[in-house]
Parts: sequence; C-alpha cells; structure tokens
Amino acid sequence: MNQLLLSFDTSTPRGSVALVSESVVVGEVSLDVKHRPHSDYLLRHAHFLLQESGVTLADITGLCVVNGPGSFTGLRVGLATVQGLAQSLELPVYQISSLLVLGFMYGRAPCVQYCLLDARKQELYGALLQWGANGPRVEQMFVLPPAAICEHINAHHASEPVILIGHGAEIYHELFQRECNADLYFSGSASQIPSAADAVQLLLQWPGLFPPVQVYEIQAQYVRPSDAELQQRRGRLA
Amino acid sequence: MNQLLLSFDTSTPRGSVALVSESVVVGEVSLDVKHRPHSDYLLRHAHFLLQESGVTLADITGLCVVNGPGSFTGLRVGLATVQGLAQSLELPVYQISSLLVLGFMYGRAPCVQYCLLDARKQELYGALLQWGANGPRVEQMFVLPPAAICEHINAHHASEPVILIGHGAEIYHELFQRECNADLYFSGSASQIPSAADAVQLLLQWPGLFPPVQVYEIQAQYVRPSDAELQQRRGRLA
Repeated sequence: MNQLLLSFDTSTPRGSVALVSESVVVGEVSLDVKHRPHSDYLLRHAHFLLQESGVTLADITGLCVVNGPGSFTGLRVGLATVQGLAQSLELPVYQISSLLVLGFMYGRAPCVQYCLLDARKQELYGALLQWGANGPRVEQMFVLPPAAICEHINAHHASEPVILIGHGAEIYHELFQRECNADLYFSGSASQIPSAADAVQLLLQWPGLFPPVQVYEIQAQYVRPSDAELQQRRGRLA
Repeated sequence: MNQLLLSFDTSTPRGSVALVSESVVVGEVSLDVKHRPHSDYLLRHAHFLLQESGVTLADITGLCVVNGPGSFTGLRVGLATVQGLAQSLELPVYQISSLLVLGFMYGRAPCVQYCLLDARKQELYGALLQWGANGPRVEQMFVLPPAAICEHINAHHASEPVILIGHGAEIYHELFQRECNADLYFSGSASQIPSAADAVQLLLQWPGLFPPVQVYEIQAQYVRPSDAELQQRRGRLA
C-alpha cells in the first residue's frame, strides 16, 4: 500500500499543513498566524488540502508532527491536533525535531552547520548538524543568547566555513556577522523555518530515524522549561 | 504604503500561490497538479489565501510571477493569469527567473553553485549562480543533457566543492555522482523547486534587479524553442 501522510508544523508563527505521498509532495498550505492561535485553522487547512487533492481522511496512512523546539503554545496545539486525529483514525504518528527538519531542508554542505530558531527572550534554540551514513542528526541541542553561540563558534571553528541555517540566524544577522570570526554563511529563504512537507520528506528518506509512536507517547521537545513551570518552581521554593 | 504582493509560480508541476507583505510571508498554497492544468485552481488558491488572511484583491499592491525556464504550458497559464489580474487591477508586475529563485532559496555558500530544473527530453535547464554586491544572478543559462553538464563541471571545477541546487539534480542524482569528479553536494528538500513565496522574498531583498513591467512586456523565459515552434520551422523548411 502506498503511504499517504498528513503532516503538521506549528513550531513557528508560520504554521503549515502538508499532504505527502510516497514519492511526491501533493500539497502544502502555510499561513502566518500573527496573534491568532494555530487552532483557528489547522484542521480547516487540512480539510482544504484533502479536498483539493481528491482524497479523504480514510486514505491517510500516517500522521507526522514537528514536536519542537519552538513556540510552546504552537507546539501544544499541533501535538493535540495530531493526538486527536491519531486516536480517532487509529494511525501511527511520527514526531520530528524542528531543528533536524531545518538541517534536512538545507542539505549536506562542506561546512560546519548550525540550525537556529527563535526562542524569544533574546535567545535561540540551536543544534550542531551532523551527517552520517544513517542520515542527518542534531547534536548538542541548546537554548542560548546569540552572543554565547558566537563565542562557541569562535572557540571551535575560527576561520572555518560555518553555515547558520534558519530564521534564528536571520534575526541576529548583524550580531553574528560582527562577532563571529568564522567564514560565515547564512541559509537562503527556503530554509528559514521548518515546513510540514519537508518533515515528511525527511521521514520518508530516513524512516529508521523515526519509529512510529503511540498517541500517549507523543511529546513536545521544549529544550527549556515553560514560564508556567518556572513560576511553579519559584512558588515551591518561596 | 506597505507592500502586499500576490505571487504565482507555475514553472513546475507543483505550482504555488503566495501572499507576502513587506516583512513577512503571509501565506502560501502549493499543489502538485499531476495531469490537470494549473488553471484549474490557481485563482481559487489565490482566493483562499486572501480569505484566510483577511485581505481583498483591492489591498494588493503588486503581482509577481516566475517566468521560467520550466513547464511551457505551466508558464503560459501563470503568465496569462497574472496578465489578466494586472490589466484589471492596474498593478505593476515583477517577473523573476525560476533558476534565480532556486539559487536565492538556497543562499550563498562557499562552493561553485549550479541551479538545475527538469527540461524533460533527458535534458536540464541550468545556470551558474553568482553572488555580487548587488545580489544573486544566474550566468550562462543553458538547456543540456546531464552528461554534458558533468563534462562542463569536470572541465572547470574538478576537485572543487560544487553544489547542485534544485530538483533537476535530484532526478539524475546517480549519474552526477558517478560522472562528476568534483567534491559534489546536493541541495536539501527545501530548494528543490521554485516557490511563489520565495520569489517575492527575492524581489523584496533585491528590488533593483526586478524593474516593474507593463502587462504586454511580461514574457516567458523558455530557453529552448517549444515543440510547436520546432514543428513550424520544420514545416517551413520542408
């Protein structure tokens, strides 16, 4: 049976829904949600895609979701939506890291590669990207101020070609150019934010990296504790 | 007045429509048309995007269209749609090369960069990508069999790092890997085909490269003559 996967990414304000078959991206809808919640249209966009492609939910063979790091509220909405669909349709779920998707979107290059996404509070989510015989992987996942990332690059990759992948690098473009003494490059417009369609393409190319999970095993990768959690901890200590 | 651009790409079977404001990609819909014509839903998708974003055609300040090289029929449909809209709404039109969009989507890298798209008939549309102070440009645009492109790479860039950008390279992945003696890389999933949203981002970043044109100046970049044209020429010679 051919695979037909429905995929969701809500890790950034520009969320996306995609339909991908074994060999081809059937379609994708992305929309910048601004100050509205992703829940306002995630399912409507999925419905639109199915309709435009002449398939129904019954044709879907699996669900894919980008599980972070990224917007806390966005991730919760995306994961909850996928949990609801997986439960009712009895479908396997594949969860994929936003930073790994970014690296796959850019591809292997003859440089040191960092994937960076906005973490707000003047910090970035990031990871070093590595390519092996079994596909790409992200190492040393972190949440750090951009200046600390520059220090790390200067300490480990001075004068080497280094490529910064993702919108996180774009936000602090000037700072990186001023502070980094590596031979610095920035990824182009296409690998700025993760996309639901690219998440599935990563999954289809390296299925061994993403074992299917059960509904209750779906978990967001937050990297840092949420504000609510921090407040609770402070409450406990007080 | 803030710019709000409506953009169309029909240069490949996976067409896209995007809405982009001065600073942000508001939304994008892409759909693989398989054997149906792009005209079946290009305007419906534009309508959907406007509706989802809460804007109307009257808010649009300009139109953007990818004018090739690529699918002959696809390009004609895309350009005709934009001509119709431009005429009735009295809007400026910006036309942008598919190969240049691909290069911009990938970004500047410390390698020789080629942009390649499927031209059918065992050939590829391609160009060498160059980055200058005034932005990216494509040089030596060609339509060639992949083996001839390998010969060119071997003659000019043996042992150098070379990155092949776009779905054209993916189709002949094995051939390129076997025949090229450069240090060869392939762009990732995100810069496989041009996108309407990325075309506008290129335009907004380097406006000087794309002077607005009038409705009757819009022109497809075919690179090679169409079958109809070839048949007509043969007819004339017979």
